[in-house]
Amino acid sequence: MTTIGEPHIVKSYDSELARLDDSLARMGGLAEAQMAAALEALEARDSGLAARVMEGDAQVDAVEAFVNEQAVRVLALRSPVADDLRTVVAALKIAGEIERIADLAANAAKRSLVLNRLPPVEPMRSLLRLGRLALGLVKEVMDAHLGHDALRALAARDRDQEIDDVYASLFREILTYMMEDPRNITPCSHLMFIAKNFERIGDHATNIAELAHFRILGRAAPQDRPKRDDSSFVGADPE
Amino acid sequence: MTTIGEPHIVKSYDSELARLDDSLARMGGLAEAQMAAALEALEARDSGLAARVMEGDAQVDAVEAFVNEQAVRVLALRSPVADDLRTVVAALKIAGEIERIADLAANAAKRSLVLNRLPPVEPMRSLLRLGRLALGLVKEVMDAHLGHDALRALAARDRDQEIDDVYASLFREILTYMMEDPRNITPCSHLMFIAKNFERIGDHATNIAELAHFRILGRAAPQDRPKRDDSSFVGADPE
Repeated sequence: MTTIGEPHIVKSYDSELARLDDSLARMGGLAEAQMAAALEALEARDSGLAARVMEGDAQVDAVEAFVNEQAVRVLALRSPVADDLRTVVAALKIAGEIERIADLAANAAKRSLVLNRLPPVEPMRSLLRLGRLALGLVKEVMDAHLGHDALRALAARDRDQEIDDVYASLFREILTYMMEDPRNITPCSHLMFIAKNFERIGDHATNIAELAHFRILGRAAPQDRPKRDDSSFVGADPE
Repeated sequence: MTTIGEPHIVKSYDSELARLDDSLARMGGLAEAQMAAALEALEARDSGLAARVMEGDAQVDAVEAFVNEQAVRVLALRSPVADDLRTVVAALKIAGEIERIADLAANAAKRSLVLNRLPPVEPMRSLLRLGRLALGLVKEVMDAHLGHDALRALAARDRDQEIDDVYASLFREILTYMMEDPRNITPCSHLMFIAKNFERIGDHATNIAELAHFRILGRAAPQDRPKRDDSSFVGADPE
């Protein structure tokens, strides 16, 4: 479709690719805002804010649908190759990762509605710390992606290990609160799932870092860091 | 690249598309086998089998990487449009969904290693029932996809509601066992995560059903069934 020597058409092709990046930037910004609001709703026990986060998820889904449409249109009409093809394929995949991050944030908000009907529990402070780490990582990988900075993406990826470590220790902490008092069991079971959501947000951020690396340099990121979740091995027998 | 009137090239293009379907079929078969083995490992408390499921996940990842490569190659060399473009984009996305299903099955197997070091707990039977429902749904949507049967895909999608209902009641059941005896808390917290894995496998099967519908008919499936997880609203206060 695109012919060298037809600058107008070439220019519109470039602007289509740039628009894909704009949409991803917007989607990333929305997901970060959703996550920050979910954390605030948890901390302030603000059910109104939590409800707005749940509603806001549809907006992220809509941007994802738009990215998918744009990407498929570019594939169909422009037949991109090499760098451009990588840009389009990476956009499709990164949009999917951001959608899941927003989804997990909305689920955390939904669970906070239940928590607000129950007495506050201690491990909330550690949970918020984990959430802020995950949010920081999402911001960092999105900045690396939009700044075409493959090294920064790799460095960000390595920070996911810290999230996994904090998650594993939080999992143990929550278990001890459950054992201490059966009244903690219901709220703590929701904390556990929210913690798992934040840990998974870290994994999705890691995936974005690797997709950014692939898109920028045209090759897979070195040594696929296994996404460990050591809580699966926590078997501390209460006996 | 492909020119009408060059049957040899056209034929090789068709066979490339057919190979994508073959790879997806293989990937789906592997994921189903992984999930069936994870359920067997849980039921029989067979740590050796669980370890094999964990190792087997790499094979599913490898097939996904192969599907991605094939799809990108077809996009780059054949510039598919219309039906063929949908086939390639759907293959990319379905491969991602199957990879997650296998990942969740491997995580269930990993958690079963911990469970085997702890005394058996009652809700395991309900958990296995949920797992079998999810496995049945994965089989059904993969058959619908490979048989190009959009109606069957839609009918399968609606079965995810049953999985959500069984999951919600299992979540409550597990909470009561935790409250009954603090020694149940650690094993039951792992059961809870495994149950959540199975519920999410149902969601990924739903996504595959919708992608199959899109790929076969060229339009989105009617009324996007919201992927509800009612356990977020379980707030039974133990007081």
